[in-house]
Amino acid sequence: MLVIVWWLVTVVMVAAHSASGVVELYWEVENQFWSPDCAEGSTGFVITINGTFPGPTINAVAGDTVIIHVKNKLFTEGVVIHWHGIRQNGTPWSDGAAGLTQCPINPGETFTYNFTVDKAGTHFYHGHYGMQRSAGLYGMMVVTSPKETLHSDGEFNLLLSDWWHQSSTFQELSLSSKPMRWIGEPQSLLINGRGQFNCSQAWYFNEGGLKECKFKKEDHCAPTILRVKPNSVYRLRIASTTSLASLNLAVEGHQLEVIEADGNYVTPFTVKDIDIYSGETYSVLLRTHNPSPPRKYWISVGVRGRKPNTTQALTVLHYAGASESGRLPSPPPVTPIWNDYKRSKTFSKKIFAAKGYPPPPEKSNKQLFLLNTQNLMEGYTKWAINNLSLSVPPTPYIGSIRYGLPLEYLNFPGPDIIENYDINKPPVNPNTTVSSGIYKLPTGIVVDVILQNANVLNVEVSEVHPWHLHGHDFWILGYGEEKFRPGVDDKKYNLINPPLRNTVPLYPYGWTALRFVTDNPGVWFFHCHIEPHLHMGMGVVFAEGVDQIVKMNIPREALGCGLTGEMFMNQGRH
Amino acid sequence: MLVIVWWLVTVVMVAAHSASGVVELYWEVENQFWSPDCAEGSTGFVITINGTFPGPTINAVAGDTVIIHVKNKLFTEGVVIHWHGIRQNGTPWSDGAAGLTQCPINPGETFTYNFTVDKAGTHFYHGHYGMQRSAGLYGMMVVTSPKETLHSDGEFNLLLSDWWHQSSTFQELSLSSKPMRWIGEPQSLLINGRGQFNCSQAWYFNEGGLKECKFKKEDHCAPTILRVKPNSVYRLRIASTTSLASLNLAVEGHQLEVIEADGNYVTPFTVKDIDIYSGETYSVLLRTHNPSPPRKYWISVGVRGRKPNTTQALTVLHYAGASESGRLPSPPPVTPIWNDYKRSKTFSKKIFAAKGYPPPPEKSNKQLFLLNTQNLMEGYTKWAINNLSLSVPPTPYIGSIRYGLPLEYLNFPGPDIIENYDINKPPVNPNTTVSSGIYKLPTGIVVDVILQNANVLNVEVSEVHPWHLHGHDFWILGYGEEKFRPGVDDKKYNLINPPLRNTVPLYPYGWTALRFVTDNPGVWFFHCHIEPHLHMGMGVVFAEGVDQIVKMNIPREALGCGLTGEMFMNQGRH
Repeated sequence: MLVIVWWLVTVVMVAAHSASGVVELYWEVENQFWSPDCAEGSTGFVITINGTFPGPTINAVAGDTVIIHVKNKLFTEGVVIHWHGIRQNGTPWSDGAAGLTQCPINPGETFTYNFTVDKAGTHFYHGHYGMQRSAGLYGMMVVTSPKETLHSDGEFNLLLSDWWHQSSTFQELSLSSKPMRWIGEPQSLLINGRGQFNCSQAWYFNEGGLKECKFKKEDHCAPTILRVKPNSVYRLRIASTTSLASLNLAVEGHQLEVIEADGNYVTPFTVKDIDIYSGETYSVLLRTHNPSPPRKYWISVGVRGRKPNTTQALTVLHYAGASESGRLPSPPPVTPIWNDYKRSKTFSKKIFAAKGYPPPPEKSNKQLFLLNTQNLMEGYTKWAINNLSLSVPPTPYIGSIRYGLPLEYLNFPGPDIIENYDINKPPVNPNTTVSSGIYKLPTGIVVDVILQNANVLNVEVSEVHPWHLHGHDFWILGYGEEKFRPGVDDKKYNLINPPLRNTVPLYPYGWTALRFVTDNPGVWFFHCHIEPHLHMGMGVVFAEGVDQIVKMNIPREALGCGLTGEMFMNQGRH
Repeated sequence: MLVIVWWLVTVVMVAAHSASGVVELYWEVENQFWSPDCAEGSTGFVITINGTFPGPTINAVAGDTVIIHVKNKLFTEGVVIHWHGIRQNGTPWSDGAAGLTQCPINPGETFTYNFTVDKAGTHFYHGHYGMQRSAGLYGMMVVTSPKETLHSDGEFNLLLSDWWHQSSTFQELSLSSKPMRWIGEPQSLLINGRGQFNCSQAWYFNEGGLKECKFKKEDHCAPTILRVKPNSVYRLRIASTTSLASLNLAVEGHQLEVIEADGNYVTPFTVKDIDIYSGETYSVLLRTHNPSPPRKYWISVGVRGRKPNTTQALTVLHYAGASESGRLPSPPPVTPIWNDYKRSKTFSKKIFAAKGYPPPPEKSNKQLFLLNTQNLMEGYTKWAINNLSLSVPPTPYIGSIRYGLPLEYLNFPGPDIIENYDINKPPVNPNTTVSSGIYKLPTGIVVDVILQNANVLNVEVSEVHPWHLHGHDFWILGYGEEKFRPGVDDKKYNLINPPLRNTVPLYPYGWTALRFVTDNPGVWFFHCHIEPHLHMGMGVVFAEGVDQIVKMNIPREALGCGLTGEMFMNQGRH
């Protein structure tokens, strides 16, 4: 019955603006001592917002204006916040990408983000400067719509992340050192900012020989219990803001009906567990049954895509009436084996747009090939796209464009950049160049991006990269193995009902093709959402509608640094 | 013979400007992995300049213009550098005090310091934003003069510091937490950035039962050996940039003739060891004898003024021909007991200006009483001066003054602020207020500052505070026990030959009086040089010559943040 109701709402993509309101928030960002996983001897602090970690959940209604005054109370670090999944139509300076759309907010200062949330969906927000996401600067953002008639008996937000015991500063430095010092796998996985280090709540099943987790209810690491009633439907809003880990979530004894991905409805499908990459969000429906007597079930989150060295995160689905302190009768679900990419791809390929979504334009005006490689630069390890490793400059690109300051625009490579490259071997010439160059895109066109994966510096290794685009949703036209073949693979694109997303995985030794319409002038980041990879240069920047950016009324507060800051100062001389 | 020559040069206080040159340096500031004390498992990174720690020594000649282009290559932190001991006559914006004289330099950006070094002396430089001094951002600055005819057979710079295994961010957070988490005593003391954690080079004398230090020549912790010849005179230039520790330095078997303090010559006197507080510099002459056979002697540095929990730092005075690897025949000098303040004061009171220095003005126009207390603010531990704990705002004071932006000026308290206070007990009302207010001083007057110490929050504790003044040297008129008595104690001021300094200790339960002439318009920090104390509010700010600051041609690059930055942006609208 519920599913039937669902079909009726999926065509409602834009909220009525008549009843739109304003959500105005005052936030203070600061470090605080915190033990997300109750580990002893860890660095023990996170970036909090108004004293909480994760930051407060933003609840808004489609059509609302969201105004967030962010005061930086860190001692010496700048800060920005990116609203992941919000397209920032007409407000690109509120996108919160340091060096692209704004200057970092200086300690002691306040910057006001002001944007519209145009449609219902599950989103999140996070720091986008240095590796402050890894330092804990994130939270959920849920946009509902009165037109969304889907009924559920309750909702739970599950914000998934990973946690290291070394500070983000230490991690940045490790990755930028010569030779690079890899940060390793996370110490813990967190569900809503809560995890348990080096122990297991399911210890009595001898889970990996781990000892019992000891925590009190009020501890930072005490898991959020999902309390449910029988014979009900719950919407789980799941978001992954991991720094590194690709995850899989399962609920023991329950199936999950996937209904939303990255803020867009999908044709519902049912799975036993769900893969989720950093930068992705999903809504799944969980139907409770009527266990007698009432009992508890495990919710487990484990690592995929990299050889795991991190304990599963666990919490509990607690049926009303079940014992509070008793043991669970069965062990938690086992995370599928990390390198079963076939299984991962099967999941990815199950996702189609819900009925009612218009198909993508049939043809594109431009093809952009992005070859993903791991490289070296004078002994430093870098990730490069088309042989260039991105270095974001101190002057925000949007300001440089607006005021005609010098900027390097990159040429679009042809398909030969892939054709001439052996993706199955380490690069013949592993050397890369660091570049601040960006790609210029006119407005009003259809762009295809073909992401091509390759072997890294070590033999027989290729990694998953979840690519995230700012300012847009895109259609995922297809995934493929090996090299993309122009004129062949593009003939097989799904142009009927491809899912609209803002994040998409690029699988090892394969390609992913996506399409978007340049309908949103601004400067938009497109990057691997794995924070260490981005830190090492794995991203590109799109300057969309340069002719319109130059006319934009960008709040100068966003541009008070670098060359734009200098320019304002000199203009002001009298 | 040497001493005789010495007298002749002490009257030469200002260098000829005819031959003045330019010292231009290009610096890059970044974090790097480093093991100053070879400890395992420490955070292991320091702030380096051009890849070195401590930063490069600046060598200049009196009269030179020093131009330093500082590029911030930290990932998310701002940075400034203060040139400790340089008075910045006419260039207050080059003083490098964040929030007072400039905005922090943003990551990726460059700020140019440009100032004149007007006289010979031993100085240093260090970070002055957050607790970046504790993160290792410091180095020596030596100004010589061709008119300084003192002959020595060689010079050694000894830059003393202390080192923690937790990052400066962690320390800042600890001190700012509720309740405050004290950072504890340093893990190691460093000589020229080199120390040995939890071990002793003199282990074979069973020094505190410590094990042998193991290091290789190329290790960061390998001590700098002072290689000397017999029957020679060496000038040791000693500076302390400790975050917390008060130090004592001794050279086994050698006396030290003190000739310079904080860049001013003093009447030479000879000691067996020298106390040095954070912010102070000294030059001492060390005369070698002729040991037969040639041998090695210990140079030891230990903690005073706080109950020590840190191993002595050791290095070696190595006579030419002594064995490279052999043991020393005798144990290192023992640091005087930490709380023998009588001994400390005896040393302080031995320091007089060298002949040739004019005496201070006979009378002062203004008396400023500064009562030092430890307090609480809503459960946070603070240090307060006259019941106000300093919070430096994001807009640099010098910019607020220059452009007439709102600013709070504090009233000068009368002597009753001390008279009415029981300095021997914890504060009756321990609560303080945080304030950004500053003191206004007209130019062309003589100011006396009376620093009054008191009991902290715990009973029967009062601490040493080395107070440092920017932009000026001052005369130390006197030290006294208990409360300062106006009309009594000021009658006993030394107005004949008080030493000119920029840093002076305030002893437990006592007072210190100093005098300076307001001959340098600018905004000048006067603060306890103990970094945790300053972080907790222990400082005041002097706005000197406001009527002249408003006319100053301050480089706008120094003011591109906060309200001044905003103002420039709005002025620039067209």
